[in-house]
Amino acid sequence: MYVGKKVIRVDAYDKAIGRTKYTDDLCDKSAYIVRVLHSQIAHGRVVSIDTSEAEKIPGVVKVFTCFDVTEKHYFPTAGHPWSTDPDHQDVADRLVLTEEVRFYGDDIAAVVALDEVSAAQALRAVKVTYEEYPFVLDVQDAMKDDAPQIHSKYPNNILKHTSIRKGDYEQAIQEPGLTKVEGWYETPTVQHCHIENFICYAQMEGDRITITSSTQIPHIVRRIVGQALGLDWGSIRVIKPYIGGGFGNKQDILYEPLCAWLCMQLGGHLVKLDVPREDTFVSNRVRHAIRSHIISWVRPDGTFAARKLEAFSDQGAYASHGHSIVAKGAGAFPQLYPCENVEVDAYTVFTNKPVAGAMRGYGIPQAMWAVECHTEDVAAKMGLDPAFFRRQNLMPKGYVDPFSKNELYHDTFNQCLDKAMQAIDYERKWKQYQNQSGDIRRGIGIAVFWYNTAVWPISLETASCRMVLNQDGSLQVQLGETEIGQGADTAFAQMTADVLGVPFDKVHIMSCQDTDVTPFGTGAYASRQTYTAGFAIRQTALLLKERILEYAHDLTRMPAYNLDIQNGEIVRTTDGRTLLSLKELSTEALYSLSNSKHLSAETTAQTKSNAYSFGCTIAEVEVDIPMCQVKLLNIVNAHDAGTLVNPALAEAQVHGGMSMGIGFGLSERMIFDPKSGRTLNNNLLDYKLSTFMDHPRLKAEFVENPEPTSAFGTKSLGEPPACSVAPAIRNAVYHATGAAVDTAPVNPHNLFRKLKDQGIL
Amino acid sequence: MYVGKKVIRVDAYDKAIGRTKYTDDLCDKSAYIVRVLHSQIAHGRVVSIDTSEAEKIPGVVKVFTCFDVTEKHYFPTAGHPWSTDPDHQDVADRLVLTEEVRFYGDDIAAVVALDEVSAAQALRAVKVTYEEYPFVLDVQDAMKDDAPQIHSKYPNNILKHTSIRKGDYEQAIQEPGLTKVEGWYETPTVQHCHIENFICYAQMEGDRITITSSTQIPHIVRRIVGQALGLDWGSIRVIKPYIGGGFGNKQDILYEPLCAWLCMQLGGHLVKLDVPREDTFVSNRVRHAIRSHIISWVRPDGTFAARKLEAFSDQGAYASHGHSIVAKGAGAFPQLYPCENVEVDAYTVFTNKPVAGAMRGYGIPQAMWAVECHTEDVAAKMGLDPAFFRRQNLMPKGYVDPFSKNELYHDTFNQCLDKAMQAIDYERKWKQYQNQSGDIRRGIGIAVFWYNTAVWPISLETASCRMVLNQDGSLQVQLGETEIGQGADTAFAQMTADVLGVPFDKVHIMSCQDTDVTPFGTGAYASRQTYTAGFAIRQTALLLKERILEYAHDLTRMPAYNLDIQNGEIVRTTDGRTLLSLKELSTEALYSLSNSKHLSAETTAQTKSNAYSFGCTIAEVEVDIPMCQVKLLNIVNAHDAGTLVNPALAEAQVHGGMSMGIGFGLSERMIFDPKSGRTLNNNLLDYKLSTFMDHPRLKAEFVENPEPTSAFGTKSLGEPPACSVAPAIRNAVYHATGAAVDTAPVNPHNLFRKLKDQGIL
Repeated sequence: MYVGKKVIRVDAYDKAIGRTKYTDDLCDKSAYIVRVLHSQIAHGRVVSIDTSEAEKIPGVVKVFTCFDVTEKHYFPTAGHPWSTDPDHQDVADRLVLTEEVRFYGDDIAAVVALDEVSAAQALRAVKVTYEEYPFVLDVQDAMKDDAPQIHSKYPNNILKHTSIRKGDYEQAIQEPGLTKVEGWYETPTVQHCHIENFICYAQMEGDRITITSSTQIPHIVRRIVGQALGLDWGSIRVIKPYIGGGFGNKQDILYEPLCAWLCMQLGGHLVKLDVPREDTFVSNRVRHAIRSHIISWVRPDGTFAARKLEAFSDQGAYASHGHSIVAKGAGAFPQLYPCENVEVDAYTVFTNKPVAGAMRGYGIPQAMWAVECHTEDVAAKMGLDPAFFRRQNLMPKGYVDPFSKNELYHDTFNQCLDKAMQAIDYERKWKQYQNQSGDIRRGIGIAVFWYNTAVWPISLETASCRMVLNQDGSLQVQLGETEIGQGADTAFAQMTADVLGVPFDKVHIMSCQDTDVTPFGTGAYASRQTYTAGFAIRQTALLLKERILEYAHDLTRMPAYNLDIQNGEIVRTTDGRTLLSLKELSTEALYSLSNSKHLSAETTAQTKSNAYSFGCTIAEVEVDIPMCQVKLLNIVNAHDAGTLVNPALAEAQVHGGMSMGIGFGLSERMIFDPKSGRTLNNNLLDYKLSTFMDHPRLKAEFVENPEPTSAFGTKSLGEPPACSVAPAIRNAVYHATGAAVDTAPVNPHNLFRKLKDQGIL
Repeated sequence: MYVGKKVIRVDAYDKAIGRTKYTDDLCDKSAYIVRVLHSQIAHGRVVSIDTSEAEKIPGVVKVFTCFDVTEKHYFPTAGHPWSTDPDHQDVADRLVLTEEVRFYGDDIAAVVALDEVSAAQALRAVKVTYEEYPFVLDVQDAMKDDAPQIHSKYPNNILKHTSIRKGDYEQAIQEPGLTKVEGWYETPTVQHCHIENFICYAQMEGDRITITSSTQIPHIVRRIVGQALGLDWGSIRVIKPYIGGGFGNKQDILYEPLCAWLCMQLGGHLVKLDVPREDTFVSNRVRHAIRSHIISWVRPDGTFAARKLEAFSDQGAYASHGHSIVAKGAGAFPQLYPCENVEVDAYTVFTNKPVAGAMRGYGIPQAMWAVECHTEDVAAKMGLDPAFFRRQNLMPKGYVDPFSKNELYHDTFNQCLDKAMQAIDYERKWKQYQNQSGDIRRGIGIAVFWYNTAVWPISLETASCRMVLNQDGSLQVQLGETEIGQGADTAFAQMTADVLGVPFDKVHIMSCQDTDVTPFGTGAYASRQTYTAGFAIRQTALLLKERILEYAHDLTRMPAYNLDIQNGEIVRTTDGRTLLSLKELSTEALYSLSNSKHLSAETTAQTKSNAYSFGCTIAEVEVDIPMCQVKLLNIVNAHDAGTLVNPALAEAQVHGGMSMGIGFGLSERMIFDPKSGRTLNNNLLDYKLSTFMDHPRLKAEFVENPEPTSAFGTKSLGEPPACSVAPAIRNAVYHATGAAVDTAPVNPHNLFRKLKDQGIL
């Protein structure tokens, strides 16, 4: 069995020696080079664009402006599975180039040149005349009646408002003896900062167009390019090579439609669009900044009588993934610490800022910042031990969510807390760090997180798989679910090897998706792949196995039910004898003069279940109070992600997520000029991305409760590690200093303000 | 219905504007460049190779010699389907580089460099020391006991000798009143001269190797590279882009194994091997030169009492396709003009010459040269009208071959002769050109040909097909059968559209095969593809249709047997009402929240039948006797290829084959230096390839008798057009001059010799 083993990644060697081919490696050097011209105002209208000087520059092929987009096909960009129900379709508010400017960085023109230098020169030579409108950058200001209207269809700039009502909040807060704890919590706009910026290229073959893109979701790109260009979806072909990270930014359609459109304007010539880092920050997608207001009414015994959450999610200028991000976080609120009386209101609001989309955690890191800062605040106000207080109130084993039908099958929270507390020596440190004095103080803090797997029942969950047997008993596996650096291909190969009974190195995962031949699957997001693709892999491997054993029956005359495939051999189970190898069987099957068969199997597995995937973070910090500087000393994440397909890759996933959480908690935020709306730190010098150099040794602990609904006992692990890190750090700082920083990140600026406010400094 | 219509080629536009990507277009510019060093002796052993000077040349990466090939995996090169029966496997006599030299041009070393120039310089700087052996160039000399032995396993250099015995020849020739007609007929060594020379490149991913090759047979390349490198076949991946012609040369494995081997020696670095035209002539494959000896014993009524054929096929230095070529021709002999008493002996003999392999017609052009020159000679000797004489003796309607079970279902020969004779005004011209005098004379000549379709029952015939439905009701079709310029993709699209009931432009044939994902099929040869792939297409389309209609039943509640797909719509056959479009159905199927399904189908169709595909050529010539120059005035081919899938493409096939036949009849031959064995005219200046400039208007006539065994009524048309052209020209020259040229081509040299011999000049 390979599932559960630390098998070496299938792509390890090539990636280590640099042989792996990414999109730019594959693009022919004859490609025209595209650079996008972004608006330099935050809100307004393009009156005219003068391209004459730009087009005189040698090497410039042509400059296309928003006025060249005469057929206006508005398209959505969210990498969601499509819905045939118009009410569940994503908002279609984008054009490949736009006259209407809604943020500083909007796409208004594109330069096509023979080389990078000419393109850059031309970009500077294009002259744009704007009509400027007032703009708004703050999410709650944008909801005011006199705020600038960003999209005419959405009064008060509210893209969507949803409510949850449980019990009777107003009644419940009348209970005598309750303590009211209230707080405002805020997370910043951050960016994914994958190593490989977004890049794609397009070319035509006949009247079809092929786009090779650094994307997480090739089949969705196909559909959306079709929508954006007004073409039949089958006339689009999307190829996804290896990609250098995505983290949700590449779960949006970014510039594939523009690149394809330019290609078509240029007679199908090969066109490459490679986004610089500066543009990636501003004109790709960012994580939603969310401001949350929480009120808890707590009984003297430390239980909740009533709770209320208002969340304001800053969508930026276009809908992208829209309301679903804050909705996911809002949905977690009544579940994580169940309470009889709850009111939740979640708002997604347009502002004149860069567009927010999916990012690892999908609203949960923001929600956990609010909820777990608040939980700490409640425990502090009530004078309760925060670990004890959490254990007392967290979702218990056996909890079933009425909407998703998710059940918490195990005592996951206590198990994770136990593991993490032990790993970091929590009890001792918690006591040791009470009542410190002096400039340098230490603290330790906990945060838990809520996460569920995949998107059912909100949206479609489907994955198809094809397996093709070779003459040597090896096989290819094709899936629409994508390798984006996380090791999915390796996990898929392990699963296949186990179900089919072949050696791991005989499973060749087709890493590069090609929508023309790759079975339909929606791709990498929602930490869905080992869960969702797992069903498709098991089902398809079982079908292939059945076909192989049928053929084995023809060759051996043994009944198929007495046969099995073990380690690449056809074995008679009744006496354990090896009758022939899979290699012999498949060679005979292909070349048989009596019954030639190319053995393969292809199936679709629709998933109509979902699974909770919970855990926690404990962080230990040292704070230099006069310097307002936080040093992270120790950190541990504990997860119950069900069965780990590959413990080494699982650990790597957790490390990556923790790194992202550390940045979110300590240093990362995009800064916008209030005078212009311009992003001021859209580069990796001024934007403090958390790197290996900023980390202590990252510790990952696992509780492996096999998920009963899952094909391989697995559930989400991709995003969860990023969810509880920031509030754990904040709570550790609180423990060390008494300063309850409510605005992430806990950088010197925010910490200084809080220490000052609370009179500690 | 699209089958039968002159639909425009699916690749027409891209090929016309030059956008189509061939192997060299796809190879990254970072590739190392390979040049092969060929032996400069015809027979011997490489004693040593000094690469020191070559390796000093800047830009040279490394020089590999035959002595670096330490693991000797002998491999076959014939593009035949594999057989698991060792007795039916092709001879494995090649190494990627060889110490044993068997012809002038053998592969003894390879230079790898950063660029073409360094590679060419290095090639000249390598110093080789040989031990030379005597060599033999003539096929019958090679059979002598004292001839140099080329392969130790084959005494008298006979690769294989097969006999056919029917009736009692010796007894039959005793019949009184018989006329004996005897002749020796000879065809030259010619080369395919496809526009795109052979090219391939290789690179490694993990421990697998990917080879992109200009080949007709990607799945066979995969197997043979595995054999040549001693690797599991599944660790090889072969990609076949568009190719610029193959004509059988690319039905052999040429340099894919060497290229892959070099790549592996260089740590998997991308390596490109692009063969120059000069090497293509000598070190790829050539058409077998065949010398035939025929004796016919003819009764006074013009029927055959007994016949005898001895054929000596010049294999060159390695086995390649081996005996099967002359065997096919020898097999035609007793069938074309059936006779009770027949003796056939066919020999395939090694010589120290370039290796002969498959070439359009696969032995039949050579056999038809012998048989149809001889038929003309018999008619002349008997004083019979050659057209009448043929009609009297040709295979009649209803003839069944006991081995292949082929039946001639129609009066094909008479129908084709009628059509061709009418088209060229034969009767009038035949009479008019009798008894001419003067220097310039005209003549008209007939030749018929025998051809059968595909390779069953000699070898395996199998084709697999996969179809994948898109959201817009379009679909991809994947087949191992290849587009090699002949228009196969267009024919496949027409077939698919008809069976599935969708518009032609909704069928996307995946032209580029990739053995990792393309269903197994053996490729383009034996004029098999519309016949063999036709079965797979119909079977797979029917299965997909069944699945579509099942889903339509779910959506409409109508029984599937009352539903049909017509022009991309789901139609209720009971009242002809359109219930929904295939686009609506497939979109709903993919995105259904209740029953999500990616509709596709994949099947293997094994073919256990075969079909005769006959026809004829009539040529009209003008001969300038003193100049020994033949001018082709008119030529017509008539074919019964069953139903024509696409009459325009069928006509193009016939034109191409006729062009090749004209070269074979009038000008083409490779010349070998008797002193060294070197090819003297291995370039397109000294080798007189027939081109458009050398042709009259080519006329193609068709008799469309639907083939009853076929999925679409089709049978072979790819190779047949090249089979009877040369003897028709020869017979026309005979008619004009009385000179019976028995050695092809009828170039001034051969014509002069004959005119001189017969005392005409």
